[in-house]
Amino acid sequence: MRIRLLLTYDGTDFAGWQLQDTSREPRPTIQGALERAIHKVVGQEVRVHGSGRTDAGAHALGQVAHFDSPIPLGHYDLRRALGQHLPSSIVIRQAWEAPEDFHSLFSAKSKVYVYRILNREVPSALHRNRLWWVRRPLEVQPLNEMASQLLGRHNFKSFQTRGTPIENTERVITKALWVERRPGLFEFQVQANGFLKQMVRNLVGTMVDLQLRGREPVELGEILRAEDRRAALTTAPAHGLYLVRVFYPEDLDNRCRKI
Amino acid sequence: MRIRLLLTYDGTDFAGWQLQDTSREPRPTIQGALERAIHKVVGQEVRVHGSGRTDAGAHALGQVAHFDSPIPLGHYDLRRALGQHLPSSIVIRQAWEAPEDFHSLFSAKSKVYVYRILNREVPSALHRNRLWWVRRPLEVQPLNEMASQLLGRHNFKSFQTRGTPIENTERVITKALWVERRPGLFEFQVQANGFLKQMVRNLVGTMVDLQLRGREPVELGEILRAEDRRAALTTAPAHGLYLVRVFYPEDLDNRCRKI
Repeated sequence: MRIRLLLTYDGTDFAGWQLQDTSREPRPTIQGALERAIHKVVGQEVRVHGSGRTDAGAHALGQVAHFDSPIPLGHYDLRRALGQHLPSSIVIRQAWEAPEDFHSLFSAKSKVYVYRILNREVPSALHRNRLWWVRRPLEVQPLNEMASQLLGRHNFKSFQTRGTPIENTERVITKALWVERRPGLFEFQVQANGFLKQMVRNLVGTMVDLQLRGREPVELGEILRAEDRRAALTTAPAHGLYLVRVFYPEDLDNRCRKI
Repeated sequence: MRIRLLLTYDGTDFAGWQLQDTSREPRPTIQGALERAIHKVVGQEVRVHGSGRTDAGAHALGQVAHFDSPIPLGHYDLRRALGQHLPSSIVIRQAWEAPEDFHSLFSAKSKVYVYRILNREVPSALHRNRLWWVRRPLEVQPLNEMASQLLGRHNFKSFQTRGTPIENTERVITKALWVERRPGLFEFQVQANGFLKQMVRNLVGTMVDLQLRGREPVELGEILRAEDRRAALTTAPAHGLYLVRVFYPEDLDNRCRKI
């Protein structure tokens, strides 16, 4: 029985999503913590598949994962059962019985990330692991002039961190918007059919850096068209990044049944 | 030269405000971290006085402290200098040169605390150390019927945790209000001329417990009038508690000079 999970996590204390070592993790990972919790509930080792990796320190409000349960779980309060074996920094928001053709990674149509910046003189003690603190004043309008150039189908090679070489670096961005949610709280909202390694952090870091250096918004398009990682600027830190939502075809959603 | 500080902290990793052991702290305290940072900046050991203790795990948005500097600091960027020696979980929001008769504890007229509750089915991964998670549904109206009985001058002995015996357990509460800031986010806002040990946590825990047990709001007044700790119910956990603001006489505020 295939199970689909919707989960939230605070990435602060984790070495990211991806399992590092199946025997003994030097630093815990989200995937590792999930697999250990599921093992305790279903009595066997299982492999958990996520919609994609998240970096060490990055957070998720709506990560999606799936696994195949060796025992029926349709009438089980799986959310609470897993909760008893998970650290409080990982919360299962919902569990579904999913059709066999549902795959958290391969079925995904698009993803939404947000990146949050605290833009003020004084840092935040309470949100220090939730926001990137940028001291010098930012302006939302020129940031949006940059972001609008990202919309559509482009080769995002300039914004891919090396490490996981990928053949096709073309992606389609359908939303790229800066909003000032409250005075001093900037948020970059971005939706695409997929993201390259550290793409959101490279985009945010480059846009902020261009603005702080007093450069023209049009330069973002030049960096994009360079299709060369050396053209981009700063990589924004992971702790401002949130995976917010993963979209799947409606047909697949409709065949998932809440448990 | 007397220095007044306004500070914010995330209490999660601290054993509260009060210094535990001057030589070597088993768990760090806010006071200890401040004294070490000030020592590095002014070159001598100094004693820091807070407006009051906060419990282990409790937070502050606006704690006030003072110390006497052996060196002049009037033209120094003290906020940033201290910031370089403080953990990121403690932030100096503002520093003032204060008159010699300013005392963070003895001059305080009143304090405001808020207590935050997450009231929903699913806990929060990202705010787990910031809110008390109460799963069963709460209602703001009956909570306010309880809170209104706290207004005015009363003997709050029923809501004092033992440990620091205090002669006079009378206090004057000038605000006691429950608000539902967003669906599922409850906040108790309370202002008084002073608070007994764990008084806010005992008040919140008792009000919530009365409601969850389906008892009448009027019973809170009966517990108050019992003037007996055994009459009160649960103590709410520290991690939902925030010291928001400390008020001083206007005359003293006016004689403080921002540095």
